[in-house]
Amino acid sequence: MSLQSLNTPAALIDVARMVRNIERMQQRLNGLGVRFRPHVKTTKCVQVVDAQIAAGAQGITVSTLKEAEQFFATGIRDIVYAVGMAPGKLGQALELRRQGCDLKIVADSIACAEAIEAFGREHGEAFDVWIEIDVDGHRSGVLPEDDLLLAIGKVLKEGGMHVGGVLAHAGSSYEYDTHDPLVRIAEQERSGCVRAAERLRAADIPCEVVSIGSTPTALTAEHLEGVTEVRAGVYVMFDLVMHNVGVNDTSEIALSVLTTVIGHQEDKGWAIVDAGWMAMSRDRGTQRQQRDFGYGLVCSENGEVLGDYVMSGANQEHGIISRTGTPDREIAHRFPIGTRLRILPNHACATGAQHPVYQALAEDGSIETWPRFYGW
Amino acid sequence: MSLQSLNTPAALIDVARMVRNIERMQQRLNGLGVRFRPHVKTTKCVQVVDAQIAAGAQGITVSTLKEAEQFFATGIRDIVYAVGMAPGKLGQALELRRQGCDLKIVADSIACAEAIEAFGREHGEAFDVWIEIDVDGHRSGVLPEDDLLLAIGKVLKEGGMHVGGVLAHAGSSYEYDTHDPLVRIAEQERSGCVRAAERLRAADIPCEVVSIGSTPTALTAEHLEGVTEVRAGVYVMFDLVMHNVGVNDTSEIALSVLTTVIGHQEDKGWAIVDAGWMAMSRDRGTQRQQRDFGYGLVCSENGEVLGDYVMSGANQEHGIISRTGTPDREIAHRFPIGTRLRILPNHACATGAQHPVYQALAEDGSIETWPRFYGW
Repeated sequence: MSLQSLNTPAALIDVARMVRNIERMQQRLNGLGVRFRPHVKTTKCVQVVDAQIAAGAQGITVSTLKEAEQFFATGIRDIVYAVGMAPGKLGQALELRRQGCDLKIVADSIACAEAIEAFGREHGEAFDVWIEIDVDGHRSGVLPEDDLLLAIGKVLKEGGMHVGGVLAHAGSSYEYDTHDPLVRIAEQERSGCVRAAERLRAADIPCEVVSIGSTPTALTAEHLEGVTEVRAGVYVMFDLVMHNVGVNDTSEIALSVLTTVIGHQEDKGWAIVDAGWMAMSRDRGTQRQQRDFGYGLVCSENGEVLGDYVMSGANQEHGIISRTGTPDREIAHRFPIGTRLRILPNHACATGAQHPVYQALAEDGSIETWPRFYGW
Repeated sequence: MSLQSLNTPAALIDVARMVRNIERMQQRLNGLGVRFRPHVKTTKCVQVVDAQIAAGAQGITVSTLKEAEQFFATGIRDIVYAVGMAPGKLGQALELRRQGCDLKIVADSIACAEAIEAFGREHGEAFDVWIEIDVDGHRSGVLPEDDLLLAIGKVLKEGGMHVGGVLAHAGSSYEYDTHDPLVRIAEQERSGCVRAAERLRAADIPCEVVSIGSTPTALTAEHLEGVTEVRAGVYVMFDLVMHNVGVNDTSEIALSVLTTVIGHQEDKGWAIVDAGWMAMSRDRGTQRQQRDFGYGLVCSENGEVLGDYVMSGANQEHGIISRTGTPDREIAHRFPIGTRLRILPNHACATGAQHPVYQALAEDGSIETWPRFYGW
């Protein structure tokens, strides 16, 4: 199988770029003296995660219990389910632990902690629970200085659960695009999470792990004192949102969507392609960033950026390619029907999720099909 | 299996609503004296399409050749692939026709028509080709008055292909939200497509089928003189985008996402749920409409709209539920941890696509799992 023989649309991984992205993050975190626990929600793909672990990752982060089940089945034991535990999913978590999975679950409220410890006591299971810390008001978690933190720890500890650590995610780091604010939010993530761990320990609640991370903060933090591990996901592919944040060049984006030109509207300067939002996802993450790439940035079939052409519109299976600024009325000559292009995505997690498989393109031009799973 | 036993997130179909939606559209088009060819891209689900055909639909519309293959395998022969033909997919189309599928393909350019007739002649296949008509400048197609239309018809006819019809989709109908402009765009779709057919026939190019459609225009057209069939897809589920357009009430939306409350940020008036954009899709189709529903409108587990609560933010597996306007600082009491909610989606096609299966909830409370497929 070769690039030229692939049906379109297809989700293409440039394996050399992916390997460089994996090495870059692993070497950086090795240098900062912390363990690395990649978030596998980005790819849900065994071959990608194997490469992350081969490079030195220790354990994985998951966003669904299905991911935990699928990766545990491939032999990975050390797994953090980094979404607040729904009481109704405790049976599924118990089943994984009974099978030998070292699954960690997350709580950020008394109600959740009580549900976990009640279920754990009922089933004779000392769940390993990490408490989620809110370091930037972005989503979930307990503020480091809030005594709720200690109350949650106490409920868990007294209920016989194991308080294994604290975990934070500075999701607001995606909103910056210059170095200094990124350094500041990285430090805020680090210091807030470390502070929460210190408060728990001072209250005689054990808290071994201090887990932080997002791709932007992992790549900009100046030091990680007190942190034991970092989580990051999208770095493995990178994307246009991360490019706008400033942590990768477009030439480092490992994921693209291969597509074919199927029509034109010459007076409008449009080429129509057979990749729409079903292939790109509806993610418009660059819409409010410094540069709006529409639904993606256009490259040649060989992966070179072709200037200012973006996917400016998308229906389910139609994409509209146009030049930013003045319309290109020669577009039918530039990209004749049958021309194959690659589109760099706004958000690698969202675009990957639309595809049952990745087509992994090696430097020698050979292609392997790497399945990915979906659903819950 | 019951509603209460379902894991979350899950894509739920209210079967009674779906059946009413199917009957409404079928009866309307029967009354207008045209055939109905539903677009199955909305659900990609055999059970749903079976219900559409049982109600009187004749043939189906697909957005990918995979849909054609999957539904042909279930016994449906009469299929229109309503996306401009990529030359590289002609082999796949030929294979379907050789197996007995009455597959129609689409062209809107000389280059595409030439590719089809060259491939057809080479393989001794008279493809049934429909010419796409541009009735609103929305996407693809040839203007009815453009002589390119006749030139395409001539290439196909002289190459031994069968010019089976013309097809138009007034995609811009989604941009309106009052009755009169919808009636006008519906008439524009009808008259433009009929005019194109008349011009082809006058040039001695056969053109039996005049195929138009979108859910808004199908539901507002005052007459369909000259039209032979209508296509529409999203009507089977309806959604919040269509509600804003004005063609359905929220109580008619048959698709929702079942989710569980997993946390709160009380000072912000947030409840956090276990359905994020992975379960809802990234579709923000209501963003620029008369009412922005965020990522969806919140209902009780039993499907009743709960007032002004929407999913105001979404990460991959986290949704933020909040009240429109003033924050609800009692939200943790209103929706305690473990509360199950249904979220009505912006766009049923996009939300469905995120799920491997639908959970079909009958009026008696029983649930059947209906698979859907994805990919290309």
